[in-house]
Amino acid sequence: MGMKTDLPVEKVANLFCNETGYQTPKIETRAAMFKDNKILLVKEQGKWSLPGGWVDYNETIASSTINEVKEEVGLDIIPLRVIAIQDRNKHNLPLKAYGICKVFMLCSIEGGSFQANKETTESKFFSFGELPILDEDKTTTSQVKMCFEAFNNDKWQVVFD
Amino acid sequence: MGMKTDLPVEKVANLFCNETGYQTPKIETRAAMFKDNKILLVKEQGKWSLPGGWVDYNETIASSTINEVKEEVGLDIIPLRVIAIQDRNKHNLPLKAYGICKVFMLCSIEGGSFQANKETTESKFFSFGELPILDEDKTTTSQVKMCFEAFNNDKWQVVFD
Repeated sequence: MGMKTDLPVEKVANLFCNETGYQTPKIETRAAMFKDNKILLVKEQGKWSLPGGWVDYNETIASSTINEVKEEVGLDIIPLRVIAIQDRNKHNLPLKAYGICKVFMLCSIEGGSFQANKETTESKFFSFGELPILDEDKTTTSQVKMCFEAFNNDKWQVVFD
Repeated sequence: MGMKTDLPVEKVANLFCNETGYQTPKIETRAAMFKDNKILLVKEQGKWSLPGGWVDYNETIASSTINEVKEEVGLDIIPLRVIAIQDRNKHNLPLKAYGICKVFMLCSIEGGSFQANKETTESKFFSFGELPILDEDKTTTSQVKMCFEAFNNDKWQVVFD
């Protein structure tokens, strides 16, 4: 960022190392995509989760969701609706020292195909009754269930903590 | 936080001063509350805005909205619905070097009354046709309009960038 702007590096560091009063939870997104009422999960280090990750400081919820899915699954998507805004420490283990705001997005698949990459080794659609072993750090069974419910309910009200 | 946990202070600092790859936008909330189809705004340094502010690292969207409104307006509220998740730099001026994710919440007033405090000097309900001078750093006319639209539409779909 110091290279992109005319701010001295110390000033850039200060922007990111504020007093605790301005320290807010970090944000990550998780994408829920469906085909034949099955949900797309990705495999990473032997366990499965919804594709997603940190929102970079200069990205939006939508652009981050699109980029993470492209990186991890190779698919081109469109974020359609917000499913939930959750406080990670209320839902996922292990607990983290800092807050994480997890934004779940319902997305449609527009194109692309899975390609090997440095993060994920596999991607596959699963029905709710045949979920694989989930990485509960990132995605729990309850969170997958919530995504199915949102997908099957046009009047879904966004869940939040 | 170093005092609350057994982590050394350097480690706590590192949690908040990560490499840029984990640096995400900061999060703030803005509360929209209505009475007789008028919206509640607060006055700070001569200009008006929706009450709200940073989400502390250990708070949720809901708890932060509740606490900010209590601090700034003295009211007890319940967050009802998410209105929008916006990327501040796409809507508010001046632009900031770091990203800010603005979460707008529709809330109901349950009790309390305005009390003088260190941040806000006044609070008042305004119809959309008689808005005062807004602090566009925090709240624009378009953002207030969006809140009116969400309030008057039970089928509101959460807006996001």
